[in-house]
Amino acid sequence: MSRAIHRDHFPDRPLIERVCVVGAGVIGSLYAAHLSRVTDVWVLTRREEHARALEARGLRVSGRADFNGAVHATADPDAIPAFDIAIVATKATGLDAAASSLEGRFADATIVTVQNGLGAEGIVRGHGNWPIVSGVTFMSGTRHDDTHVEYILDTETWLGPYNGTPYESVEELVALIESAGLKARGFPDLRPAQWSKLIFNATVNAVAALTGLPHDRHFGAEAETGDLGHLVHALMDEGKAVAAAAGIELHEDPWEMNVLATRRGSAHHPSMLEDVEARRPTEIELITGALVREAARLGVAVPLHTALYRLIKAKEASWELEIGQSEGRPE
Amino acid sequence: MSRAIHRDHFPDRPLIERVCVVGAGVIGSLYAAHLSRVTDVWVLTRREEHARALEARGLRVSGRADFNGAVHATADPDAIPAFDIAIVATKATGLDAAASSLEGRFADATIVTVQNGLGAEGIVRGHGNWPIVSGVTFMSGTRHDDTHVEYILDTETWLGPYNGTPYESVEELVALIESAGLKARGFPDLRPAQWSKLIFNATVNAVAALTGLPHDRHFGAEAETGDLGHLVHALMDEGKAVAAAAGIELHEDPWEMNVLATRRGSAHHPSMLEDVEARRPTEIELITGALVREAARLGVAVPLHTALYRLIKAKEASWELEIGQSEGRPE
Repeated sequence: MSRAIHRDHFPDRPLIERVCVVGAGVIGSLYAAHLSRVTDVWVLTRREEHARALEARGLRVSGRADFNGAVHATADPDAIPAFDIAIVATKATGLDAAASSLEGRFADATIVTVQNGLGAEGIVRGHGNWPIVSGVTFMSGTRHDDTHVEYILDTETWLGPYNGTPYESVEELVALIESAGLKARGFPDLRPAQWSKLIFNATVNAVAALTGLPHDRHFGAEAETGDLGHLVHALMDEGKAVAAAAGIELHEDPWEMNVLATRRGSAHHPSMLEDVEARRPTEIELITGALVREAARLGVAVPLHTALYRLIKAKEASWELEIGQSEGRPE
Repeated sequence: MSRAIHRDHFPDRPLIERVCVVGAGVIGSLYAAHLSRVTDVWVLTRREEHARALEARGLRVSGRADFNGAVHATADPDAIPAFDIAIVATKATGLDAAASSLEGRFADATIVTVQNGLGAEGIVRGHGNWPIVSGVTFMSGTRHDDTHVEYILDTETWLGPYNGTPYESVEELVALIESAGLKARGFPDLRPAQWSKLIFNATVNAVAALTGLPHDRHFGAEAETGDLGHLVHALMDEGKAVAAAAGIELHEDPWEMNVLATRRGSAHHPSMLEDVEARRPTEIELITGALVREAARLGVAVPLHTALYRLIKAKEASWELEIGQSEGRPE
């Protein structure tokens, strides 16, 4: 039925027959499971064992939706049949490895990036000449195990053409995602939306990772001098100055996004806070790092983002130190 | 023998017969144990059990020195006989309670403050009119249990008169501390030294607490854009601008103190990092908070210290949140 709806929207265009989702974390799993309801889905995983579990059990979605999606999965890119679309849904830290696994393959496919921060498209372009669609997603969820993801925030994925990709490809993709039960929206120019999220993310992720706070009311508090909201506001203002210098009119004001989100009740755990708690490498380079480098290129001072960038990098270094120390110690 | 040395230095002045040490954490324990070798020492503890252990077993020092000091101890200020000197060696967070326990008592005593940050003397003055000696200590150690402290860094305690206290009282105290085997130094005006340490501490403590790094080589690294040393340097510069506006010529350059300390090899764990790891309230208000308030009074912009101040306060708030959440949860 969903396929029929999709075909009605685009009567003259060939159906999207097969989608490859690269990476099956929270976001990848949400796309793969939902899309499996309207098209053939292959999941490219990092671990063989993960692929086998997905082939055997499918992908269960709970929370905002409740179903089990049948998907194909493999850790070997050569095992995947030709597809129309690849959604690369790895973390920014895994993007280069993911794109290189597609290199020299699937010449007719369109690649979709949905990483946080800036610069994902350039990393993909470094590995092939596929048309690229830029994405920004606001969905969130919790990964319970290899084959079960809980869908928590049913917010939109925003999509736009990258560097000459026809806008029709974006519209087709939006229709496909919507027919699968997720929310999506196309933008002829995604950068205003991408920058709104970049500024929001650079601020909220780094502050959460340093303080241990989820994205809660503290981020909007400006009553006392010591209140965190002052810092959050100043970080947003620095980011807005960079966007203005880049000639970008923001889609949404990141401070207003922040205030709105913190009033929503249930506090979201930003992914960088989760990374820090698990002592995993964070996405700091593609989020705050990208903002700081853009600011330098444009001659805009961003002392607070630069401070947070250095603090998070030092925090990552503190884990290496602990590993180094324990390795150095005789047991 | 030590008493004789002391008497020789000050033949005309009455001997310091009895010292009260308030608080037996690392610093209080180091003073109490050493001083017990040259004078009568009473320790005022918060916990009864701690006092009983000290009375029974004395105070063991290991590390840079190795001995057991016999001290009296009590948790009841009324049980302490009149003394000449009280060294209040609580953390800044416990100072107000400690000073109030002395209120209305020991009119002839001189009170010594050795808290981090600024403003300890004013808190003591709020509880009585005793002459006050300002102190700054660079000693460090590790508290193994209630009656055992390891003496790690045998660095100086710096002392100076506060608000009209005669300098002779400072000299007498310096001689007493030195006769006990610790290092001390008197300053007719302590503020240049106090401010050097304030700027050093505000920077190193907050950065360590946020990153999880001990005070190691990262704090001096300035090779790459992302290196932490740039932030540390900028924080030191902000602090120096405040000191300059306050008309204070620093005793030591805090950046040079930092570089020197990080080259020493064994990385020191700043107390605020330990507080954060143990999820205890930090001394942020009397250290960075004091610097930020002085800066505001003097009209000096300190955006980076202000950012760190808000981040640490938010980090403290994150622990309350966890307590609140776990209390709210049905078990």
